[in-house]
Amino acid sequence: MERIGFFAGSFDPPTHGHLALVRRALHVVDRLCVGVGRNADKQGWIPVDARIELLKSMVPERVDVIAFEGLAVAAAQAAGATLLVRGLRNAADLDSEMPMALANEELAPGLETIMLVAAPGVSHVSSRLVREIHRSGGDVSAFVPPEIVKYLESHPPS
Amino acid sequence: MERIGFFAGSFDPPTHGHLALVRRALHVVDRLCVGVGRNADKQGWIPVDARIELLKSMVPERVDVIAFEGLAVAAAQAAGATLLVRGLRNAADLDSEMPMALANEELAPGLETIMLVAAPGVSHVSSRLVREIHRSGGDVSAFVPPEIVKYLESHPPS
Amino acid sequence: MERIGFFAGSFDPPTHGHLALVRRALHVVDRLCVGVGRNADKQGWIPVDARIELLKSMVPERVDVIAFEGLAVAAAQAAGATLLVRGLRNAADLDSEMPMALANEELAPGLETIMLVAAPGVSHVSSRLVREIHRSGGDVSAFVPPEIVKYLESHPPS
Amino acid sequence: MERIGFFAGSFDPPTHGHLALVRRALHVVDRLCVGVGRNADKQGWIPVDARIELLKSMVPERVDVIAFEGLAVAAAQAAGATLLVRGLRNAADLDSEMPMALANEELAPGLETIMLVAAPGVSHVSSRLVREIHRSGGDVSAFVPPEIVKYLESHPPS
Amino acid sequence: MERIGFFAGSFDPPTHGHLALVRRALHVVDRLCVGVGRNADKQGWIPVDARIELLKSMVPERVDVIAFEGLAVAAAQAAGATLLVRGLRNAADLDSEMPMALANEELAPGLETIMLVAAPGVSHVSSRLVREIHRSGGDVSAFVPPEIVKYLESHPPS
Amino acid sequence: MERIGFFAGSFDPPTHGHLALVRRALHVVDRLCVGVGRNADKQGWIPVDARIELLKSMVPERVDVIAFEGLAVAAAQAAGATLLVRGLRNAADLDSEMPMALANEELAPGLETIMLVAAPGVSHVSSRLVREIHRSGGDVSAFVPPEIVKYLESHPPS
Repeated sequence: MERIGFFAGSFDPPTHGHLALVRRALHVVDRLCVGVGRNADKQGWIPVDARIELLKSMVPERVDVIAFEGLAVAAAQAAGATLLVRGLRNAADLDSEMPMALANEELAPGLETIMLVAAPGVSHVSSRLVREIHRSGGDVSAFVPPEIVKYLESHPPS
Repeated sequence: MERIGFFAGSFDPPTHGHLALVRRALHVVDRLCVGVGRNADKQGWIPVDARIELLKSMVPERVDVIAFEGLAVAAAQAAGATLLVRGLRNAADLDSEMPMALANEELAPGLETIMLVAAPGVSHVSSRLVREIHRSGGDVSAFVPPEIVKYLESHPPS
Repeated sequence: MERIGFFAGSFDPPTHGHLALVRRALHVVDRLCVGVGRNADKQGWIPVDARIELLKSMVPERVDVIAFEGLAVAAAQAAGATLLVRGLRNAADLDSEMPMALANEELAPGLETIMLVAAPGVSHVSSRLVREIHRSGGDVSAFVPPEIVKYLESHPPS
Repeated sequence: MERIGFFAGSFDPPTHGHLALVRRALHVVDRLCVGVGRNADKQGWIPVDARIELLKSMVPERVDVIAFEGLAVAAAQAAGATLLVRGLRNAADLDSEMPMALANEELAPGLETIMLVAAPGVSHVSSRLVREIHRSGGDVSAFVPPEIVKYLESHPPS
Repeated sequence: MERIGFFAGSFDPPTHGHLALVRRALHVVDRLCVGVGRNADKQGWIPVDARIELLKSMVPERVDVIAFEGLAVAAAQAAGATLLVRGLRNAADLDSEMPMALANEELAPGLETIMLVAAPGVSHVSSRLVREIHRSGGDVSAFVPPEIVKYLESHPPS
Repeated sequence: MERIGFFAGSFDPPTHGHLALVRRALHVVDRLCVGVGRNADKQGWIPVDARIELLKSMVPERVDVIAFEGLAVAAAQAAGATLLVRGLRNAADLDSEMPMALANEELAPGLETIMLVAAPGVSHVSSRLVREIHRSGGDVSAFVPPEIVKYLESHPPS
């Protein structure tokens, strides 16, 4: 039976950190579903549909990319996943991920959360950092794949 | 002489975590005053007055529930409290609670802050988590008392 | 293809925390190998062979229990495992587990470390705590399975 | 009814940090019992009896100093205490204190653990630090009361 | 050759903590440039120009105060700095400072980030705390220099 | 005037992490003195004199390597240093380094402690990890310079 993982996030924008985690997760699951959360109230930096197209152009085989609304656990179950995949960069991450994992266990008892350690070279990279550097006029090419750099050149976020 | 504790918060909404902490605090103080902060600028999720009514219907004996504006230490002193009661769930909590405790000591030298460890089964529960799950259409009945579930059904927050 | 996980530790003694983690890991892997580290220099509290017999009597199906010497990654590879399973109780755990995971990645590139959150009711339980309580004459039955309580009664550790 | 707190530790040696915590605890309890753990296997740096005499000469009114063996919760109950008092200096402290508090709750349901924040000027002081500085020939008078400085001059620890 | 450090922040308002860090930094560098970030989108609590004038009136010799827009590393390089100076109050600070230091290293390879520990008496002080206390009608004179107290009296922030 | 830093440690053995920190420190100081602590009671893994010879063969220009006994601050002052250099890998490091920095400030008011963030690729490397891997028969060449690998081959530690 195929083991499917679900990796939920905003991916606004996708970073080297996200892609490194996707590659790690593929060592653990047969198929990974990357879920981009759509939030009716917040438009975000890059439109959700563009994020999804960008992710699709970057992820390796065995990875699907979808949008989802509402609870990540509901989207994971709809995608047939039995594992929620999360990345850990430092203790602050754990302090926010741990309550979420325990809450998700109560919301969806069959789903198990697995945490993977961020790779050393990308453990300081976050979407927020990328947005801040870009807003300040900095060069983000060390933190995101070339597809994102190219997209940001032609579609400057507000 | 009666020992009175003050437990300040938003309680938006009250959770199993809050009630567990109230029960713990009653082992330490003779009387506990639960103070719901009223913020002129932010309306919150559930109206302050409704939070207070809900809390009043749930707390055990020896507990008062009041609204307060301004500094928690001033409200505590006005309520005759000599102890500020806080809950600790993890290291992130401590890193925000510790500066507040030290600042409160300078603002109100007579008031001592005591920290109580969150009970294991509820240490992942927070009001923010409840709001997020409810907004995403999830079932929050594992995290809040039945009174809150019932209230949310009849008064869906925006 | 069968997915095998390796869960290394001292298990001196096995606790409710260890067993809860074993049950969680079985949601992620097809088969779990529990490896009890044998240390030529340190005799430990309960003899390694007794720990192995006790664990064997307690673990559910799909779990093997073995002794190992030397590197955990080498033992994991010898057992055919592709995943190292670790438990996380708090930020202090992460600060020690994270360097180990990154080092193990350099020592055995094919092996992925997955971290599972400790269940709320047992996140405070550790073998060291059990040893300390037992040495001080306390009752450890809240922290370890009945098999261990019984063993400790008939084989009091030094 | 008198509220009694129990503050267990090694106090090897007592420091400014311990005394600051004692003073804080006296805002919360009517009487404080300071329990110096006696460990049959470890002799310590300063003999337990000397630590007790030194503490007795330093603590304010409403504080008793006793030796205890075995579990701190048992000693606390024997002393009539309903509160266990602990100090928190940083996140590392919490990660070790939190499991102990939860375990003590299972061992002695009636006893509540309260944590008090270390005062800013002494939050870096620990007995281990004092021992290390003294062993290295440093001056420890900034970290311990004058009684301890005097004792160490006349009774150099090994 | 003169060694110049750059200390970037919002300083909204400047606190005893900021000034203590400036004094520490002057033990490490020959000249310190304090950079007040100007954010086109956010007006802040006290106007940037007022913050700069207040800082100029308070800093010791060998310190310059400037406004900057965009990346802190770019402003640091423009100011001739080779060191970025940061303060650390607790583990939460490190978890946010560490990624920034590693990102800044990629953005400006010649600039080194040095972290200085906050002094004990001010490690709980932050601009946010000061704003919150002032908004709640509290007295902030224990947390900020007298110049700030005076300014706030004559220029009450919204 | 020359700015001298002091970097104290056991360096048992020296690792890639130590050397990366030395290179970083040379961006901050004119000259760095690496102090290898000699402990009369503990012999260590590699003899102190061998550690010093190995370090001398590996460090870049502008770095001295010495042995010291007693307090690091006393050795730093004897070496003419005005800065103590420390590395930070994670929050656990900070929780042990921060009290030491504050204590050293009281012991030697003129000396300032500066903390440098460990480089991403080596932030998981520690001497203890190297010793454990080597003892378990693992290959440590990913964690230490080739000089150390060669030394360990010809001088196997006990």
